[in-house]
Amino acid sequence: MIIIGELINGTRSKVKEAIASRDSDYIAALATRQAEAGADFIDCNPGTVGDQEAEDMQWLVATIQAATDRPISFDSPNPQAVQRGLETYTGAAMPMINSVTMEPGSVEKMLPIVLEAKVNVVALALGEGGMPTQPGQREQVAQQIIDRLTAGGIEPQQIFVDPIIAPLCTAAEVGQHILEAIAAIRQYCPDCHITSGLSNISFGLPNRRLMNRAFLGLAMQAGMDSAVMDPLDKKIMAHIIAVEALLGQDEFCMNYIQACRAGRLDV
Amino acid sequence: MIIIGELINGTRSKVKEAIASRDSDYIAALATRQAEAGADFIDCNPGTVGDQEAEDMQWLVATIQAATDRPISFDSPNPQAVQRGLETYTGAAMPMINSVTMEPGSVEKMLPIVLEAKVNVVALALGEGGMPTQPGQREQVAQQIIDRLTAGGIEPQQIFVDPIIAPLCTAAEVGQHILEAIAAIRQYCPDCHITSGLSNISFGLPNRRLMNRAFLGLAMQAGMDSAVMDPLDKKIMAHIIAVEALLGQDEFCMNYIQACRAGRLDV
Repeated sequence: MIIIGELINGTRSKVKEAIASRDSDYIAALATRQAEAGADFIDCNPGTVGDQEAEDMQWLVATIQAATDRPISFDSPNPQAVQRGLETYTGAAMPMINSVTMEPGSVEKMLPIVLEAKVNVVALALGEGGMPTQPGQREQVAQQIIDRLTAGGIEPQQIFVDPIIAPLCTAAEVGQHILEAIAAIRQYCPDCHITSGLSNISFGLPNRRLMNRAFLGLAMQAGMDSAVMDPLDKKIMAHIIAVEALLGQDEFCMNYIQACRAGRLDV
Repeated sequence: MIIIGELINGTRSKVKEAIASRDSDYIAALATRQAEAGADFIDCNPGTVGDQEAEDMQWLVATIQAATDRPISFDSPNPQAVQRGLETYTGAAMPMINSVTMEPGSVEKMLPIVLEAKVNVVALALGEGGMPTQPGQREQVAQQIIDRLTAGGIEPQQIFVDPIIAPLCTAAEVGQHILEAIAAIRQYCPDCHITSGLSNISFGLPNRRLMNRAFLGLAMQAGMDSAVMDPLDKKIMAHIIAVEALLGQDEFCMNYIQACRAGRLDV
Protein backbone atom coordinates (compact mmCIF):
# COMPACT_ATOMS: atom_id res chain seq x y z
CA MET A 1 0.00 0.00 0.00
CA ILE A 2 1.10 3.51 -0.84
CA ILE A 3 0.10 5.64 2.10
CA ILE A 4 -0.54 9.35 1.73
CA GLY A 5 -0.43 10.84 5.24
CA GLU A 6 -3.38 13.20 5.57
CA LEU A 7 -2.70 15.05 8.82
CA ILE A 8 -1.19 18.31 7.52
CA ASN A 9 -4.51 19.75 6.46
CA GLY A 10 -5.57 23.32 7.16
CA THR A 11 -9.17 22.30 7.71
CA ARG A 12 -8.02 20.68 10.98
CA SER A 13 -8.13 23.39 13.64
CA LYS A 14 -4.70 22.80 15.21
CA VAL A 15 -3.04 22.73 11.81
CA LYS A 16 -4.90 25.88 10.82
CA GLU A 17 -3.51 27.62 13.91
CA ALA A 18 -0.01 26.32 13.24
CA ILE A 19 -0.14 27.62 9.67
CA ALA A 20 -1.44 31.01 10.77
CA SER A 21 1.21 31.39 13.48
CA ARG A 22 3.97 29.81 11.36
CA ASP A 23 4.55 27.18 14.06
CA SER A 24 7.15 25.17 12.16
CA ASP A 25 7.84 22.83 15.11
CA TYR A 26 4.25 21.62 15.08
CA ILE A 27 4.18 21.03 11.32
CA ALA A 28 7.64 19.43 11.27
CA ALA A 29 6.65 17.02 14.05
CA LEU A 30 3.49 16.08 12.18
CA ALA A 31 5.54 15.39 9.05
CA THR A 32 8.17 13.36 10.89
CA ARG A 33 5.68 11.29 12.85
CA GLN A 34 3.75 10.39 9.71
CA ALA A 35 6.95 9.46 7.87
CA GLU A 36 8.12 7.29 10.77
CA ALA A 37 4.72 5.60 10.92
CA GLY A 38 5.00 4.58 7.28
CA ALA A 39 3.59 7.40 5.15
CA ASP A 40 4.97 7.25 1.58
CA PHE A 41 3.75 10.77 0.78
CA ILE A 42 3.05 13.69 3.10
CA ASP A 43 -0.13 15.44 2.01
CA CYS A 44 0.04 19.20 2.31
CA ASN A 45 -3.26 21.06 2.25
CA PRO A 46 -3.08 24.73 3.37
CA GLY A 47 -6.86 24.98 3.44
CA THR A 48 -6.73 28.68 2.66
CA VAL A 49 -7.53 30.55 -0.56
CA GLY A 50 -5.97 32.68 -3.32
CA ASP A 51 -2.61 34.32 -2.79
CA GLN A 52 -2.65 33.36 0.86
CA GLU A 53 -2.86 29.70 -0.12
CA ALA A 54 0.22 29.98 -2.35
CA GLU A 55 2.12 31.67 0.49
CA ASP A 56 1.00 29.04 2.98
CA MET A 57 1.86 26.23 0.57
CA GLN A 58 5.36 27.60 0.16
CA TRP A 59 5.92 27.83 3.89
CA LEU A 60 4.41 24.37 4.54
CA VAL A 61 6.48 22.68 1.84
CA ALA A 62 9.70 24.28 3.09
CA THR A 63 8.84 23.24 6.65
CA ILE A 64 7.90 19.67 5.74
CA GLN A 65 10.95 18.98 3.62
CA ALA A 66 13.24 20.32 6.32
CA ALA A 67 11.78 17.56 8.52
CA THR A 68 11.53 14.55 6.18
CA ASP A 69 12.63 13.46 2.73
CA ARG A 70 9.30 11.80 1.96
CA PRO A 71 7.76 13.29 -1.18
CA ILE A 72 4.96 15.80 -0.73
CA SER A 73 1.45 15.73 -2.11
CA PHE A 74 0.42 19.29 -2.98
CA ASP A 75 -3.24 19.21 -2.04
CA SER A 76 -5.18 22.09 -3.52
CA PRO A 77 -7.59 22.77 -6.38
CA ASN A 78 -5.70 26.04 -6.94
CA PRO A 79 -3.08 25.79 -9.71
CA GLN A 80 -1.15 28.77 -8.31
CA ALA A 81 -0.79 27.12 -4.92
CA VAL A 82 0.24 23.82 -6.52
CA GLN A 83 2.75 25.63 -8.74
CA ARG A 84 4.25 27.40 -5.75
CA GLY A 85 4.54 24.08 -3.93
CA LEU A 86 6.39 22.57 -6.87
CA GLU A 87 8.76 25.53 -7.10
CA THR A 88 9.57 25.22 -3.42
CA TYR A 89 10.03 21.45 -3.49
CA THR A 90 13.63 20.29 -3.77
CA GLY A 91 13.23 16.60 -2.88
CA ALA A 92 14.62 13.77 -5.00
CA ALA A 93 11.46 11.63 -4.97
CA MET A 94 8.64 12.40 -7.42
CA PRO A 95 5.99 14.44 -5.60
CA MET A 96 2.24 14.43 -6.21
CA ILE A 97 -0.48 16.84 -7.17
CA ASN A 98 -3.83 16.33 -5.44
CA SER A 99 -5.94 16.69 -7.53
CA VAL A 100 -7.36 16.98 -11.01
CA THR A 101 -11.01 16.30 -11.90
CA MET A 102 -13.18 16.08 -15.02
CA GLU A 103 -14.96 19.26 -13.98
CA PRO A 104 -14.76 22.00 -16.63
CA GLY A 105 -11.29 23.57 -16.74
CA SER A 106 -9.60 21.33 -14.22
CA VAL A 107 -7.60 19.10 -16.57
CA GLU A 108 -6.70 22.03 -18.82
CA LYS A 109 -5.25 23.98 -15.92
CA MET A 110 -3.44 21.12 -14.20
CA LEU A 111 -2.23 19.00 -17.13
CA PRO A 112 0.56 21.38 -18.24
CA ILE A 113 1.83 21.54 -14.66
CA VAL A 114 1.79 17.75 -14.27
CA LEU A 115 3.54 17.27 -17.63
CA GLU A 116 6.22 19.87 -17.07
CA ALA A 117 7.04 18.85 -13.52
CA LYS A 118 6.64 15.12 -14.28
CA VAL A 119 4.80 14.37 -11.04
CA ASN A 120 2.21 11.93 -9.76
CA VAL A 121 -1.36 13.14 -9.90
CA VAL A 122 -4.51 12.23 -8.00
CA ALA A 123 -7.37 12.00 -10.50
CA LEU A 124 -10.76 12.39 -8.83
CA ALA A 125 -13.68 10.61 -10.49
CA LEU A 126 -15.61 13.86 -10.38
CA GLY A 127 -17.36 14.78 -13.61
CA GLU A 128 -19.42 17.71 -14.78
CA GLY A 129 -22.37 16.33 -12.82
CA GLY A 130 -20.50 16.60 -9.53
CA MET A 131 -20.55 13.84 -6.93
CA PRO A 132 -21.38 10.37 -8.33
CA THR A 133 -24.79 9.10 -7.26
CA GLN A 134 -25.48 6.19 -9.61
CA PRO A 135 -23.84 2.77 -9.84
CA GLY A 136 -21.32 2.73 -12.67
CA GLN A 137 -20.84 6.51 -12.61
CA ARG A 138 -17.51 6.46 -10.75
CA GLU A 139 -15.87 4.00 -13.15
CA GLN A 140 -17.22 5.89 -16.17
CA VAL A 141 -15.73 9.22 -15.06
CA ALA A 142 -12.54 7.47 -13.94
CA GLN A 143 -12.09 6.00 -17.41
CA GLN A 144 -12.61 9.43 -18.98
CA ILE A 145 -10.00 11.04 -16.77
CA ILE A 146 -7.50 8.19 -17.26
CA ASP A 147 -7.97 8.48 -21.03
CA ARG A 148 -7.61 12.27 -20.90
CA LEU A 149 -4.43 12.16 -18.80
CA THR A 150 -2.72 9.37 -20.73
CA ALA A 151 -3.67 11.01 -24.06
CA GLY A 152 -2.01 14.14 -22.66
CA GLY A 153 1.24 12.28 -22.06
CA ILE A 154 0.94 11.13 -18.43
CA GLU A 155 2.13 7.59 -17.68
CA PRO A 156 -0.47 5.32 -16.00
CA GLN A 157 2.01 4.78 -13.14
CA GLN A 158 1.80 8.51 -12.33
CA ILE A 159 -1.99 8.42 -12.02
CA PHE A 160 -3.67 7.83 -8.65
CA VAL A 161 -7.37 7.43 -9.45
CA ASP A 162 -9.69 8.37 -6.57
CA PRO A 163 -13.15 6.84 -7.08
CA ILE A 164 -14.65 9.28 -4.55
CA ILE A 165 -15.68 7.72 -1.29
CA ALA A 166 -19.16 8.77 -0.17
CA PRO A 167 -20.62 8.35 3.33
CA LEU A 168 -22.05 4.86 3.88
CA CYS A 169 -24.77 6.24 6.12
CA THR A 170 -26.48 7.88 3.15
CA ALA A 171 -27.41 4.63 1.38
CA ALA A 172 -26.78 0.95 2.02
CA GLU A 173 -25.52 0.35 -1.53
CA VAL A 174 -22.80 3.04 -1.42
CA GLY A 175 -20.15 0.58 -0.23
CA GLN A 176 -20.86 -1.87 -3.02
CA HIS A 177 -20.91 0.88 -5.67
CA ILE A 178 -17.46 2.03 -4.57
CA LEU A 179 -16.02 -1.50 -4.37
CA GLU A 180 -17.39 -2.31 -7.83
CA ALA A 181 -15.92 0.95 -9.17
CA ILE A 182 -12.50 0.08 -7.73
CA ALA A 183 -12.60 -3.37 -9.34
CA ALA A 184 -13.66 -1.89 -12.70
CA ILE A 185 -10.93 0.78 -12.61
CA ARG A 186 -8.31 -1.82 -11.72
CA GLN A 187 -9.42 -3.92 -14.68
CA TYR A 188 -9.48 -0.91 -17.03
CA CYS A 189 -6.05 0.33 -16.06
CA PRO A 190 -3.89 -2.35 -14.41
CA ASP A 191 -0.87 -0.04 -14.18
CA CYS A 192 -2.47 2.98 -12.55
CA HIS A 193 -2.78 3.41 -8.81
CA ILE A 194 -6.12 3.62 -7.03
CA THR A 195 -6.31 5.73 -3.91
CA SER A 196 -9.06 7.29 -1.84
CA GLY A 197 -9.86 9.68 0.93
CA LEU A 198 -10.70 6.72 3.10
CA SER A 199 -12.41 8.30 6.09
CA ASN A 200 -15.27 9.73 4.02
CA ILE A 201 -16.85 6.27 4.18
CA SER A 202 -17.55 6.68 7.90
CA PHE A 203 -18.74 10.30 7.81
CA GLY A 204 -21.73 10.70 10.13
CA LEU A 205 -21.16 7.36 11.86
CA PRO A 206 -19.82 6.52 15.31
CA ASN A 207 -16.63 4.46 15.77
CA ARG A 208 -15.29 5.84 12.52
CA ARG A 209 -11.91 4.13 12.70
CA LEU A 210 -13.51 0.68 12.91
CA MET A 211 -15.52 1.40 9.75
CA ASN A 212 -12.49 2.93 8.00
CA ARG A 213 -10.32 -0.12 8.50
CA ALA A 214 -13.08 -2.59 7.62
CA PHE A 215 -13.59 -0.64 4.39
CA LEU A 216 -9.89 -0.46 3.67
CA GLY A 217 -9.55 -4.26 3.65
CA LEU A 218 -12.43 -4.70 1.22
CA ALA A 219 -11.12 -1.90 -1.01
CA MET A 220 -7.65 -3.47 -1.11
CA GLN A 221 -9.20 -6.77 -2.12
CA ALA A 222 -11.09 -4.96 -4.91
CA GLY A 223 -7.84 -3.46 -6.21
CA MET A 224 -7.10 -0.27 -4.29
CA ASP A 225 -3.34 0.09 -3.66
CA SER A 226 -3.13 3.47 -1.94
CA ALA A 227 -5.04 5.57 0.56
CA VAL A 228 -5.12 9.11 1.85
CA MET A 229 -5.28 8.33 5.55
CA ASP A 230 -3.92 8.78 9.06
CA PRO A 231 -0.75 6.69 9.36
CA LEU A 232 -0.66 7.35 13.12
CA ASP A 233 -3.73 5.11 13.49
CA LYS A 234 -1.91 1.96 14.60
CA LYS A 235 -4.96 -0.25 14.21
CA ILE A 236 -5.46 0.53 10.54
CA MET A 237 -1.73 0.20 9.84
CA ALA A 238 -1.75 -3.27 11.44
CA HIS A 239 -4.85 -4.16 9.45
CA ILE A 240 -3.08 -3.19 6.21
CA ILE A 241 -0.17 -5.50 7.02
CA ALA A 242 -2.55 -8.42 7.62
CA VAL A 243 -4.55 -7.76 4.45
CA GLU A 244 -1.39 -7.48 2.35
CA ALA A 245 -0.38 -10.95 3.56
CA LEU A 246 -3.85 -12.33 2.78
CA LEU A 247 -3.68 -10.89 -0.74
CA GLY A 248 -0.41 -12.71 -1.44
CA GLN A 249 1.86 -9.67 -1.12
CA ASP A 250 3.93 -10.98 1.80
CA GLU A 251 5.83 -14.23 1.16
CA PHE A 252 5.72 -16.51 4.23
CA CYS A 253 4.20 -13.57 6.13
CA MET A 254 7.71 -12.25 6.78
CA ASN A 255 6.61 -8.61 6.88
CA TYR A 256 3.69 -9.50 9.17
CA ILE A 257 5.98 -11.40 11.56
CA GLN A 258 8.57 -8.63 11.49
CA ALA A 259 5.89 -6.01 12.21
CA CYS A 260 4.76 -8.12 15.14
CA ARG A 261 8.29 -8.30 16.56
CA ALA A 262 8.53 -4.51 16.23
CA GLY A 263 5.34 -4.16 18.29
CA ARG A 264 3.37 -2.73 15.38
CA LEU A 265 0.60 -5.34 15.57
CA ASP A 266 -0.17 -4.90 19.27
CA VAL A 267 -3.46 -3.16 18.70
CA MET B 1 -23.45 -13.69 9.18
CA ILE B 2 -24.43 -17.00 10.66
CA ILE B 3 -22.06 -17.56 13.56
CA ILE B 4 -21.24 -21.05 14.81
CA GLY B 5 -19.70 -20.64 18.27
CA GLU B 6 -16.64 -22.87 18.43
CA LEU B 7 -15.71 -22.84 22.11
CA ILE B 8 -17.25 -26.13 23.30
CA ASN B 9 -14.52 -28.26 21.79
CA GLY B 10 -12.88 -31.16 23.62
CA THR B 11 -9.50 -30.41 22.07
CA ARG B 12 -9.36 -27.30 24.30
CA SER B 13 -7.86 -28.40 27.61
CA LYS B 14 -10.37 -26.75 29.96
CA VAL B 15 -13.29 -28.12 27.97
CA LYS B 16 -11.67 -31.55 27.96
CA GLU B 17 -11.44 -31.41 31.76
CA ALA B 18 -15.02 -30.21 32.05
CA ILE B 19 -16.26 -33.07 29.88
CA ALA B 20 -14.22 -35.65 31.82
CA SER B 21 -15.46 -34.36 35.19
CA ARG B 22 -19.01 -33.71 33.94
CA ASP B 23 -18.72 -30.06 35.00
CA SER B 24 -22.07 -28.93 33.64
CA ASP B 25 -21.74 -25.40 35.09
CA TYR B 26 -18.65 -24.76 33.00
CA ILE B 27 -20.21 -26.06 29.77
CA ALA B 28 -23.53 -24.31 30.40
CA ALA B 29 -21.75 -20.99 30.98
CA LEU B 30 -19.78 -21.41 27.77
CA ALA B 31 -23.00 -22.08 25.87
CA THR B 32 -24.84 -19.14 27.42
CA ARG B 33 -22.01 -16.68 26.90
CA GLN B 34 -21.68 -17.62 23.24
CA ALA B 35 -25.43 -17.33 22.69
CA GLU B 36 -25.53 -13.93 24.40
CA ALA B 37 -22.59 -12.76 22.29
CA GLY B 38 -24.46 -13.59 19.09
CA ALA B 39 -23.76 -17.23 18.21
CA ASP B 40 -26.50 -18.65 15.95
CA PHE B 41 -25.35 -22.24 16.52
CA ILE B 42 -23.42 -23.76 19.41
CA ASP B 43 -20.81 -26.16 18.09
CA CYS B 44 -20.41 -29.27 20.21
CA ASN B 45 -17.25 -31.30 19.69
CA PRO B 46 -16.54 -33.91 22.39
CA GLY B 47 -13.06 -34.53 20.99
CA THR B 48 -13.09 -38.11 22.25
CA VAL B 49 -13.48 -41.39 20.31
CA GLY B 50 -15.78 -44.37 19.82
CA ASP B 51 -18.43 -45.18 22.42
CA GLN B 52 -17.00 -42.59 24.77
CA GLU B 53 -17.62 -39.89 22.16
CA ALA B 54 -21.30 -40.85 21.85
CA GLU B 55 -21.64 -40.75 25.65
CA ASP B 56 -19.89 -37.40 25.85
CA MET B 57 -22.00 -36.00 22.99
CA GLN B 58 -25.17 -37.01 24.79
CA TRP B 59 -24.10 -35.32 28.00
CA LEU B 60 -22.86 -32.20 26.23
CA VAL B 61 -26.04 -31.78 24.19
CA ALA B 62 -28.24 -32.20 27.25
CA THR B 63 -26.10 -29.71 29.15
CA ILE B 64 -26.03 -27.13 26.34
CA GLN B 65 -29.73 -27.22 25.65
CA ALA B 66 -30.53 -26.82 29.31
CA ALA B 67 -28.61 -23.53 29.09
CA THR B 68 -29.69 -22.06 25.74
CA ASP B 69 -32.25 -22.64 23.00
CA ARG B 70 -29.75 -21.96 20.22
CA PRO B 71 -29.49 -24.93 17.87
CA ILE B 72 -26.50 -27.21 18.27
CA SER B 73 -23.91 -28.20 15.70
CA PHE B 74 -22.94 -31.85 16.31
CA ASP B 75 -19.25 -31.73 15.48
CA SER B 76 -17.78 -35.16 14.93
CA PRO B 77 -16.72 -37.40 12.05
CA ASN B 78 -18.28 -40.30 13.98
CA PRO B 79 -21.84 -41.12 12.79
CA GLN B 80 -22.67 -42.84 16.11
CA ALA B 81 -21.78 -39.73 18.09
CA VAL B 82 -23.73 -37.50 15.69
CA GLN B 83 -26.73 -39.85 15.86
CA ARG B 84 -26.64 -39.80 19.66
CA GLY B 85 -26.51 -36.00 19.59
CA LEU B 86 -29.57 -35.89 17.36
CA GLU B 87 -31.48 -38.32 19.59
CA THR B 88 -30.72 -36.17 22.62
CA TYR B 89 -31.59 -32.87 20.94
CA THR B 90 -35.09 -31.59 21.69
CA GLY B 91 -34.74 -27.99 20.41
CA ALA B 92 -37.20 -26.38 18.00
CA ALA B 93 -34.59 -24.88 15.68
CA MET B 94 -32.97 -27.04 12.98
CA PRO B 95 -29.59 -28.25 14.27
CA MET B 96 -26.46 -28.95 12.23
CA ILE B 97 -24.13 -31.83 11.53
CA ASN B 98 -20.46 -30.92 11.23
CA SER B 99 -19.36 -32.46 8.90
CA VAL B 100 -19.51 -34.57 5.77
CA THR B 101 -16.64 -34.81 3.23
CA MET B 102 -16.00 -36.36 -0.18
CA GLU B 103 -13.61 -38.84 1.43
CA PRO B 104 -14.61 -42.45 0.77
CA GLY B 105 -17.59 -43.50 2.88
CA SER B 106 -18.33 -40.12 4.45
CA VAL B 107 -21.35 -39.09 2.39
CA GLU B 108 -22.77 -42.63 2.42
CA LYS B 109 -22.66 -42.75 6.21
CA MET B 110 -23.90 -39.23 6.91
CA LEU B 111 -26.44 -38.67 4.13
CA PRO B 112 -29.16 -40.96 5.57
CA ILE B 113 -28.80 -39.24 8.95
CA VAL B 114 -29.03 -35.75 7.41
CA LEU B 115 -32.06 -36.76 5.32
CA GLU B 116 -33.95 -38.44 8.11
CA ALA B 117 -33.33 -35.77 10.71
CA LYS B 118 -33.70 -32.92 8.15
CA VAL B 119 -30.79 -30.93 9.55
CA ASN B 120 -28.20 -28.50 8.29
CA VAL B 121 -24.88 -30.01 7.27
CA VAL B 122 -21.36 -28.66 7.00
CA ALA B 123 -19.83 -29.99 3.76
CA LEU B 124 -16.03 -29.90 3.85
CA ALA B 125 -14.29 -29.50 0.49
CA LEU B 126 -12.13 -32.48 1.34
CA GLY B 127 -11.77 -35.02 -1.45
CA GLU B 128 -10.06 -38.36 -1.79
CA GLY B 129 -6.74 -36.57 -2.15
CA GLY B 130 -7.05 -34.99 1.32
CA MET B 131 -6.24 -31.34 1.97
CA PRO B 132 -6.45 -29.10 -1.12
CA THR B 133 -3.06 -27.88 -2.32
CA GLN B 134 -3.74 -26.54 -5.82
CA PRO B 135 -5.71 -23.50 -6.97
CA GLY B 136 -9.17 -24.55 -8.14
CA GLN B 137 -9.16 -27.74 -6.07
CA ARG B 138 -11.41 -26.43 -3.29
CA GLU B 139 -14.16 -25.26 -5.64
CA GLN B 140 -13.96 -28.51 -7.64
CA VAL B 141 -14.48 -30.70 -4.56
CA ALA B 142 -17.10 -28.29 -3.21
CA GLN B 143 -19.11 -28.61 -6.42
CA GLN B 144 -18.90 -32.41 -6.20
CA ILE B 145 -20.16 -32.46 -2.63
CA ILE B 146 -22.95 -29.92 -3.35
CA ASP B 147 -24.05 -32.05 -6.32
CA ARG B 148 -23.90 -35.24 -4.25
CA LEU B 149 -25.92 -33.78 -1.36
CA THR B 150 -28.57 -32.09 -3.51
CA ALA B 151 -28.92 -35.23 -5.67
CA GLY B 152 -29.47 -37.09 -2.40
CA GLY B 153 -32.36 -34.80 -1.49
CA ILE B 154 -30.73 -32.10 0.65
CA GLU B 155 -31.89 -28.52 0.03
CA PRO B 156 -29.09 -26.04 -0.84
CA GLN B 157 -30.21 -23.91 2.13
CA GLN B 158 -29.28 -26.79 4.46
CA ILE B 159 -25.72 -27.00 3.11
CA PHE B 160 -22.88 -25.06 4.73
CA VAL B 161 -19.91 -25.50 2.39
CA ASP B 162 -16.52 -25.21 4.10
CA PRO B 163 -13.76 -24.50 1.53
CA ILE B 164 -11.09 -25.58 4.05
CA ILE B 165 -8.98 -22.77 5.40
CA ALA B 166 -5.25 -23.54 5.33
CA PRO B 167 -2.54 -21.65 7.23
CA LEU B 168 -1.41 -18.52 5.39
CA CYS B 169 2.14 -18.96 6.67
CA THR B 170 2.64 -22.02 4.44
CA ALA B 171 2.38 -20.14 1.13
CA ALA B 172 1.65 -16.55 0.11
CA GLU B 173 -1.01 -17.60 -2.40
CA VAL B 174 -3.12 -19.58 0.10
CA GLY B 175 -5.30 -16.57 0.95
CA GLN B 176 -6.10 -15.86 -2.68
CA HIS B 177 -6.85 -19.51 -3.43
CA ILE B 178 -9.37 -19.60 -0.61
CA LEU B 179 -10.99 -16.29 -1.56
CA GLU B 180 -11.28 -17.39 -5.19
CA ALA B 181 -12.80 -20.69 -4.05
CA ILE B 182 -15.39 -18.86 -1.94
CA ALA B 183 -16.35 -16.65 -4.89
CA ALA B 184 -16.61 -19.67 -7.21
CA ILE B 185 -18.75 -21.65 -4.73
CA ARG B 186 -21.04 -18.64 -4.21
CA GLN B 187 -21.49 -18.39 -7.97
CA TYR B 188 -22.08 -22.13 -8.37
CA CYS B 189 -24.63 -22.36 -5.59
CA PRO B 190 -26.20 -19.00 -4.72
CA ASP B 191 -28.58 -20.55 -2.18
CA CYS B 192 -26.12 -22.58 -0.12
CA HIS B 193 -24.24 -21.19 2.85
CA ILE B 194 -20.46 -20.89 2.94
CA THR B 195 -18.75 -21.25 6.30
CA SER B 196 -15.24 -21.93 7.52
CA GLY B 197 -13.11 -22.75 10.48
CA LEU B 198 -11.78 -19.23 10.39
CA SER B 199 -8.81 -19.37 12.73
CA ASN B 200 -6.94 -21.93 10.63
CA ILE B 201 -5.83 -19.02 8.44
CA SER B 202 -3.61 -17.66 11.23
CA PHE B 203 -2.17 -20.98 12.41
CA GLY B 204 1.54 -20.57 13.17
CA LEU B 205 1.38 -16.76 13.13
CA PRO B 206 1.49 -14.22 15.95
CA ASN B 207 -1.43 -11.84 16.65
CA ARG B 208 -3.82 -14.45 15.33
CA ARG B 209 -7.00 -12.51 16.06
CA LEU B 210 -5.86 -9.59 13.91
CA MET B 211 -5.26 -11.94 10.98
CA ASN B 212 -8.55 -13.77 11.61
CA ARG B 213 -10.66 -10.64 11.43
CA ALA B 214 -8.80 -9.24 8.42
CA PHE B 215 -9.46 -12.53 6.63
CA LEU B 216 -13.08 -12.62 7.70
CA GLY B 217 -13.82 -9.29 6.01
CA LEU B 218 -12.27 -10.40 2.72
CA ALA B 219 -14.07 -13.77 2.88
CA MET B 220 -17.42 -12.05 3.49
CA GLN B 221 -16.81 -9.84 0.48
CA ALA B 222 -16.05 -12.96 -1.59
CA GLY B 223 -19.36 -14.54 -0.53
CA MET B 224 -18.88 -16.31 2.79
CA ASP B 225 -21.97 -15.89 5.00
CA SER B 226 -21.08 -17.98 8.04
CA ALA B 227 -18.08 -18.81 10.20
CA VAL B 228 -17.07 -21.29 12.88
CA MET B 229 -15.48 -18.84 15.29
CA ASP B 230 -15.21 -17.41 18.79
CA PRO B 231 -18.19 -15.08 19.32
CA LEU B 232 -16.63 -13.83 22.57
CA ASP B 233 -13.96 -12.06 20.51
CA LYS B 234 -15.49 -8.58 20.62
CA LYS B 235 -13.15 -7.18 18.00
CA ILE B 236 -14.13 -9.68 15.33
CA MET B 237 -17.82 -9.32 16.17
CA ALA B 238 -17.53 -5.53 15.75
CA HIS B 239 -15.65 -6.06 12.49
CA ILE B 240 -18.48 -8.26 11.18
CA ILE B 241 -21.04 -5.54 11.90
CA ALA B 242 -18.95 -2.98 9.99
CA VAL B 243 -18.40 -5.30 7.01
CA GLU B 244 -22.09 -6.20 6.84
CA ALA B 245 -22.89 -2.49 6.53
CA LEU B 246 -20.23 -2.06 3.83
CA LEU B 247 -21.68 -4.98 1.87
CA GLY B 248 -25.13 -3.36 1.80
CA GLN B 249 -26.70 -5.59 4.46
CA ASP B 250 -27.52 -2.83 6.94
CA GLU B 251 -29.86 -0.10 5.67
CA PHE B 252 -28.74 3.36 6.90
CA CYS B 253 -26.25 1.54 9.17
CA MET B 254 -29.01 1.10 11.74
CA ASN B 255 -27.57 -2.15 13.11
CA TYR B 256 -24.08 -0.59 13.25
CA ILE B 257 -25.37 2.46 15.12
CA GLN B 258 -27.43 0.30 17.47
CA ALA B 259 -24.42 -1.93 18.19
CA CYS B 260 -22.42 1.20 18.96
CA ARG B 261 -25.05 2.41 21.44
CA ALA B 262 -24.98 -1.01 23.10
CA GLY B 263 -21.21 -0.68 23.53
CA ARG B 264 -20.47 -3.54 21.16
CA LEU B 265 -18.18 -1.49 18.91
CA ASP B 266 -15.90 -0.18 21.66
CA VAL B 267 -12.95 -2.32 20.68
